Amino acid sequence: MARMFPEEGRYRVAIEEIRPRVDGGRFPIKRTVGESVMVEARAYTDGHDRLRCLLRHRREDGARWHETPMEPTINDWWRAEFTVPDLGNYLYTVIGWVDHFLSWRHDLDLRTEPDDIHVALLMGAELVRHAADRATGADAEILAGLAEVLATGEDLEARLALANGTRLGQLMECHADRSLASVHPQELVVTVERERARFGAWYEIFPRSCATTEGAHGTFSDCEQRLPYIAEMGFDVLYLPPIHPIGRIKRKGPNNTLTAGPDDPGSPWAIGSSEGGHLSVHPALGTLEDFRSLVASARDHGLEIALDIAFQCAPDHPYVEEHPAWFRHRPDGSVQYAENPPKKYQDIYPFDFETDDWQGLWLELEGIFRFWIEQGVQIFRVDNPHTKSFAFWEWVIASIRRDFPETLFLSEAFARPAVLHGLAKRGFSQSYNYFPWRNTKQELTAYFTELTRGEGREYLRPNLWPNTPDILPEYLQFGGRPAYMIRATLAATLGASYGIYGPAFELIDNRAREPGSEEYLDSEKYQIRHWDLQRPDSLRDYLARLNRIRRENPALQHDWNLRFHAVDNEEILGFSKTWGDGADAILVVVNLDPVHVQSGYVEVPLEEWGLDPARPYQVHDLLGNSRHLWHGSRNYVALDPRAGAAHVFRLRRRVRTEHDFDYYL
Amino acid sequence: MARMFPEEGRYRVAIEEIRPRVDGGRFPIKRTVGESVMVEARAYTDGHDRLRCLLRHRREDGARWHETPMEPTINDWWRAEFTVPDLGNYLYTVIGWVDHFLSWRHDLDLRTEPDDIHVALLMGAELVRHAADRATGADAEILAGLAEVLATGEDLEARLALANGTRLGQLMECHADRSLASVHPQELVVTVERERARFGAWYEIFPRSCATTEGAHGTFSDCEQRLPYIAEMGFDVLYLPPIHPIGRIKRKGPNNTLTAGPDDPGSPWAIGSSEGGHLSVHPALGTLEDFRSLVASARDHGLEIALDIAFQCAPDHPYVEEHPAWFRHRPDGSVQYAENPPKKYQDIYPFDFETDDWQGLWLELEGIFRFWIEQGVQIFRVDNPHTKSFAFWEWVIASIRRDFPETLFLSEAFARPAVLHGLAKRGFSQSYNYFPWRNTKQELTAYFTELTRGEGREYLRPNLWPNTPDILPEYLQFGGRPAYMIRATLAATLGASYGIYGPAFELIDNRAREPGSEEYLDSEKYQIRHWDLQRPDSLRDYLARLNRIRRENPALQHDWNLRFHAVDNEEILGFSKTWGDGADAILVVVNLDPVHVQSGYVEVPLEEWGLDPARPYQVHDLLGNSRHLWHGSRNYVALDPRAGAAHVFRLRRRVRTEHDFDYYL
Repeated sequence: MARMFPEEGRYRVAIEEIRPRVDGGRFPIKRTVGESVMVEARAYTDGHDRLRCLLRHRREDGARWHETPMEPTINDWWRAEFTVPDLGNYLYTVIGWVDHFLSWRHDLDLRTEPDDIHVALLMGAELVRHAADRATGADAEILAGLAEVLATGEDLEARLALANGTRLGQLMECHADRSLASVHPQELVVTVERERARFGAWYEIFPRSCATTEGAHGTFSDCEQRLPYIAEMGFDVLYLPPIHPIGRIKRKGPNNTLTAGPDDPGSPWAIGSSEGGHLSVHPALGTLEDFRSLVASARDHGLEIALDIAFQCAPDHPYVEEHPAWFRHRPDGSVQYAENPPKKYQDIYPFDFETDDWQGLWLELEGIFRFWIEQGVQIFRVDNPHTKSFAFWEWVIASIRRDFPETLFLSEAFARPAVLHGLAKRGFSQSYNYFPWRNTKQELTAYFTELTRGEGREYLRPNLWPNTPDILPEYLQFGGRPAYMIRATLAATLGASYGIYGPAFELIDNRAREPGSEEYLDSEKYQIRHWDLQRPDSLRDYLARLNRIRRENPALQHDWNLRFHAVDNEEILGFSKTWGDGADAILVVVNLDPVHVQSGYVEVPLEEWGLDPARPYQVHDLLGNSRHLWHGSRNYVALDPRAGAAHVFRLRRRVRTEHDFDYYL
Repeated sequence: MARMFPEEGRYRVAIEEIRPRVDGGRFPIKRTVGESVMVEARAYTDGHDRLRCLLRHRREDGARWHETPMEPTINDWWRAEFTVPDLGNYLYTVIGWVDHFLSWRHDLDLRTEPDDIHVALLMGAELVRHAADRATGADAEILAGLAEVLATGEDLEARLALANGTRLGQLMECHADRSLASVHPQELVVTVERERARFGAWYEIFPRSCATTEGAHGTFSDCEQRLPYIAEMGFDVLYLPPIHPIGRIKRKGPNNTLTAGPDDPGSPWAIGSSEGGHLSVHPALGTLEDFRSLVASARDHGLEIALDIAFQCAPDHPYVEEHPAWFRHRPDGSVQYAENPPKKYQDIYPFDFETDDWQGLWLELEGIFRFWIEQGVQIFRVDNPHTKSFAFWEWVIASIRRDFPETLFLSEAFARPAVLHGLAKRGFSQSYNYFPWRNTKQELTAYFTELTRGEGREYLRPNLWPNTPDILPEYLQFGGRPAYMIRATLAATLGASYGIYGPAFELIDNRAREPGSEEYLDSEKYQIRHWDLQRPDSLRDYLARLNRIRRENPALQHDWNLRFHAVDNEEILGFSKTWGDGADAILVVVNLDPVHVQSGYVEVPLEEWGLDPARPYQVHDLLGNSRHLWHGSRNYVALDPRAGAAHVFRLRRRVRTEHDFDYYL
């Protein structure tokens, strides 16, 4: 009977369960430039032979694998890490083989009978001779010589020393016999983005509300005037809602009313009119040149512009006439507006991603990204991506990133967990998430443990927003100024990326349209607002302090280093972040109750932070710029929300040296 | 710029995270005939459209997918199960699509405005017309008619009733538009074996120790005489150590001494001599015909013969001369014996799985399985599979199973977890495991929770052995007869598959070769023993009772249904198994202390078992055949190891019917 054989049956190393791996390898993991990927896999062989395992990685577009020796940890897990120095995609996998030289050396050490040792040396010599055959040049000669000595040398001790010596070990490692090496069957992908994908403070404004005179329609030029104000608060990204012409048909009036007056500006998300579509600028804001000027000025202020991408059309968007095939039609021939019965959004026409002309649609939408990239934009905040095809997002993000790997995409999918995660898996750099609705200690602890320890952390980077133009959470509506400070502090310290929608935030606009609603009253989505930025109760100084602390402390620029600490009061949240060996720890203690003074004891992991339980240590509150002497692992805090609901302490972790002894002082 | 598009960009359903899936789909899961596979996957689409998802399965060699509708559970997980009725491999995957008809129906229900409803009915009519186009025959006509009524019917109520009616729903389900259906990219494999792979009681004996007269070499014919004794104890499988000629060169003497006397029989695992190798029968046991007769007689007694397969050779095995390429050679030209320095096993030559003639070696070893299958053997206990190539095992098991799907393989890999699991992943039906060394309540609870709830349960079926010829655990050495009863009870009730090595077990042979060793003194591995089966302290009756309870109670024939229950005494283990709706529960309570009486309160999950907390209920101890009235969820047990260290209770779970009312009695 004829039997089917594998191509090579002599591979003896099993390499399995490689991780990190998202959904069995279906999706890439993510990193930012300079970060590392810790890879683990299970590798073992039959019998008691010794293995060597190497982590392999290469640029997706590179030919050569870089190899890093892996170390066994426990239970046949092997581990190594590699660093990703550049933007783009890298591949990683694991290779391993039975290393007969290592096995031989290991066994040699255990042999006790002279006869045994003699024979073993002859066998070792043969292994070394084979290595000499594989080597070339000087190595080949040296190995051949060593083999000769191993086999026939007169001094047994010298032969044993040679067998166990570093020189032979290194040469044998260089010329290992990999002919029967096994490779893990998958080459997994890591997508590498720039640091801003991981760390940044965002600020959202409506350009049309930036006019200096009340009632006027703000312009890009007005925005430029606003830049110093924003930059002084220390933000990194300035995010603008859509800047395109706004549809006139079915335009919404103030507070989302169905009929707009002739002077009502409409919603920036109702994109397109006779004045143009996604590639045009709203004439009242200025020209494309004005926009480019704003981008350049922002850069001079240390700010990047993030543009809103909302793939939908007002009824008078030019696409509706030019590409009827991109829309669904109703039996009467009219275009199908957006709806979620019984709700209707007659000012919005969604694209039909099941159109026969899907390639034409995809190309056009991709072109919108390319157009704005050409105007200097490198960050896109994508509106409701979960109402557009997932296959499209996976394609378009990969396509843009191939040519412009510095481009970042923020997903605004306030959607079910699978959907929110599904978009992150398909390439979005960052994701809005459920932070606006996580307020209690239990909620925050559980959610941030999931975000920073769960499997999703490999592909989902949270961006924390206490408010957005769509979301004025109840906590902010009823908690007053302290609530705003608390939520800003949590966002800025729990998350490496966070953002606020201003000036509504710093000016504590907490009026909802109606009870039970999270919509702002007189929302800027439908009307122009004029803000008194100089109000004495503004949180601008507080935000500036938070952002300065974030910039000065690398610990706050990462997410995975978050760790919660016990506090014996359910209203006080305690957590820390550390980064780098021996660097300072940031310990944050927040009173979650915006009304009452709360106090309690916070636990500090003294041992781990190298603090002497017997000696006092200094904690420096970077928010209040006050210094306190603490002692032992439990320390008392009392936080008055009216005075300051949070401490952001810096603790000097102690790295013990000879200077710790008195006689050195 | 030319862009690369996917072949079809209009697939809108994401199908991910399918489970069960072993190592990302690299290995099959396992089931036995008649069992089911519960499959879950995450499926979602953009927007708020409705999905349909189907679980697909088919025989690996079949052309047609069977489809089962999946139901959504939570968080976009969908679930369905399929049953595997026959031996062999099945494939499974998930298909899903946006069902515009379901979305339409869902939305229709939410529409309130007459205009809206009117237009919606027209759109629905169009969907139905398209379905009519896809259908043929009567369905096509009916659908066309229904579309007409939906679109133009005069009675609005009637049209709405039609839209929501069962008939239209069923027809639309039959003729759904699957043109844009997504399929999970993997087709996963489930290997289906016969029931014995899951459930069975094994008994191991050395045939050469079966002679009725002391000192004689037992024969297959003697084994046949022994069958009634074994069958009366209720075992299902009779496992024999290797039955081949035993090498004479370097033969081991009693108690593993290096020099055998002329009459010492040697170890059955030192296979092969001038009398033959793996395809031959040891002449002292009888002939091949005698063996076939034993197989047939065993079958008549309800016993299957399991044969030991040990792929290694004594120095005088014919292979050594015939196939020198299958062995490693030492510098002096001699064959490399097995060793684990400083230990040497000079009576054993291992095969070299790195031989250039690996195909020849694999074919020969595969032929050994085929040969014994032809003699009527369907179960193989594989000796030390972890010292042979994993690639070989994966190939040989698949190859044998393709032609003889009823064949079972038990892996004897007392090895590290990754290795033990690695062999199970590669196809072994069952696995020896760490049960011999799990004795305390904490150890047993943790280990059996891992075995029955961990991911490994999909491919690793444990077979529990309190002792083997290699393993006389300390617990048995020092616990006396009660220890044997305790370990037998645990094995027989914690595991659907278990086995003992007898008569050493039932005759309580607990003498170790030396302190600290788990080797038997005067081990049957190296010498013939004669056993007095009629000894009054024999556990044969106890084992018979255990095995009868196992056969009569399906709950004990499964592993995943195990559940532990709290007992307020660390020396008492409580657990239960239930199987089937409303069937009896088996509650096992074991005193793990073989010396002292232990007592405590055991918790019974009254509610779940439908027992009235206010009324007493009967528990029937199947071991002692005593009945007790219990009351409430906490009940007292006291177990004297000398009298009986365990209860195996049967509890009638209450299925409430009208007969629960007094006036029916």
